Amino acid sequence: MTDSQPRQHFNRIALLGLGLIGSSLARVIKQNQLAGHIAGWTRSAASRERAAELALADSLPPTPQEAVAGADLVVLCTPLSAFVPLARQIAPALAPGALVSDVGSVKMPVARDLPPLLPASVHLLPAHPVAGTEQSGPAAGFASLFANRPVILTPLASTPAAKQQQLAAFWQACGAKIYQMTAEKHDRLLALTSHAPHLIAYALVHAALDSRLASADDAAAFSAGGFRDFTRVAASDPVMWRDIFLANDAPVLAALAEIETALAQLKKSISEKQGDRLAAVFAGARQMRRRIIEAGQETSQPDFGRPHSSADNKR
Amino acid sequence: MTDSQPRQHFNRIALLGLGLIGSSLARVIKQNQLAGHIAGWTRSAASRERAAELALADSLPPTPQEAVAGADLVVLCTPLSAFVPLARQIAPALAPGALVSDVGSVKMPVARDLPPLLPASVHLLPAHPVAGTEQSGPAAGFASLFANRPVILTPLASTPAAKQQQLAAFWQACGAKIYQMTAEKHDRLLALTSHAPHLIAYALVHAALDSRLASADDAAAFSAGGFRDFTRVAASDPVMWRDIFLANDAPVLAALAEIETALAQLKKSISEKQGDRLAAVFAGARQMRRRIIEAGQETSQPDFGRPHSSADNKR
Repeated sequence: MTDSQPRQHFNRIALLGLGLIGSSLARVIKQNQLAGHIAGWTRSAASRERAAELALADSLPPTPQEAVAGADLVVLCTPLSAFVPLARQIAPALAPGALVSDVGSVKMPVARDLPPLLPASVHLLPAHPVAGTEQSGPAAGFASLFANRPVILTPLASTPAAKQQQLAAFWQACGAKIYQMTAEKHDRLLALTSHAPHLIAYALVHAALDSRLASADDAAAFSAGGFRDFTRVAASDPVMWRDIFLANDAPVLAALAEIETALAQLKKSISEKQGDRLAAVFAGARQMRRRIIEAGQETSQPDFGRPHSSADNKR
Repeated sequence: MTDSQPRQHFNRIALLGLGLIGSSLARVIKQNQLAGHIAGWTRSAASRERAAELALADSLPPTPQEAVAGADLVVLCTPLSAFVPLARQIAPALAPGALVSDVGSVKMPVARDLPPLLPASVHLLPAHPVAGTEQSGPAAGFASLFANRPVILTPLASTPAAKQQQLAAFWQACGAKIYQMTAEKHDRLLALTSHAPHLIAYALVHAALDSRLASADDAAAFSAGGFRDFTRVAASDPVMWRDIFLANDAPVLAALAEIETALAQLKKSISEKQGDRLAAVFAGARQMRRRIIEAGQETSQPDFGRPHSSADNKR
């Protein structure tokens, strides 16, 4: 990003899967001229047509084998459950020396399941861009999705340092900030900050759809007081999230247990009318918000800068 | 809002409390010329000075008694726990025929506790604008906060129809959409859509501040994957929320029980690797999101229209 001249980081990048993440990656690679050729592949013919209309890739072959042929970077951008069958399919077609990476939200299974399936002549470097919106599909992507977002690399012992540097430089050129940690640490961290919160959001929305307290229509109409923010989280791609929970089950269940313990304490404070204990916990929560804004993960604009009336949007 | 001429809905409006809601109300009343005089009162001298700097009111007397003297509308905009002492204080100073209302997030205690404290010559109409941001204080308000947001009126049997119509017209002139229901229904509905979600968000943030899975700094740095949205909810005013949970304890605990039941089912599906059951629940959650967008409670813009890189914000 600091170079004034664009620099090709790879000769040919194969993107397998062109949903929100894959199509955003295609857009930023093209915009910043990071590769000589982008080969895109997506399972459904409808998505392939949509990708062609959007001119997301230089080529859109019908099979993943054709997409990866000759590629020096291959990125798996499908839901996690497709990684193993896809690795089996592409293994014979991978170019010697190719770097294989992914954008999956769980890293231990990638580090565990993929190496035995790939030829010894290729290098594996699992990665996770912590970015996204509640939308999905080839049309939902945009080139700035990764701008200032973390990309976590979880190298294996066998990943050469030069390949790590190459992939880090590539993601930096996509606008991301690079972090490195073990796959195990990654999966515990994301269980807490992403996976468990999503499961709770799903539980909340599921409860509201069939509650004795209010109708689902009323819940939708009066959602601005908090529920709305949970439904965004719960509006994300169902298949992607199914795969995440199955792949990261133990850390997610551990995170939920911690949250349930905290919730039990709060419930007890309510039942016992312990207002001071409640207020102390609530004041502590503001700290976390400040840390997140300081960490550059959020805007401090009120209501996330949601549009209010055009008549008055000043403070 | 449909009148081309501004119309004064009240001669003198007294706003007791000038936080996010009270100061937003002051701004929209002034902007739309809805009252001949705005009298503001706030407990702390610092807030009163801030309100004076911001020119939020025509007068800012030091006592609530002086603020309500001669007012035909008095709106309680403090945290709920101040309502009863405030009602005792202002009761002798209220003008005969005055309408007393509030903006509290729980309505049963208002309907139960205030009537015995107020003179028989005034009218009580509890109300709740379902609007807000994560910010608080006199400087955080803005005139369009209520634009297209629901305002729920919960009239008592004793509230005259003419007063109901007058307050509804006033809130419409503030940009709001008017709904009416019983205080009991209101409190159950908001327990589900606002209060229980907030408590869960607090539990989640509290757990993350002291987790065995990851450090609080790491949780803040990698919050974009879902956790971030919970911290917004948990960043709201601690005293306001303490009062809400204490005032609406039984419905909140009932809503939490429903959510915990839904969560237990999801956890069971994860433990038992029942991917189909998970995906079905997740797909159902998308329905709720659509209803909310159709109900006009949310934008369909990705990531709530949070700013991405200036280099590319198109799709």
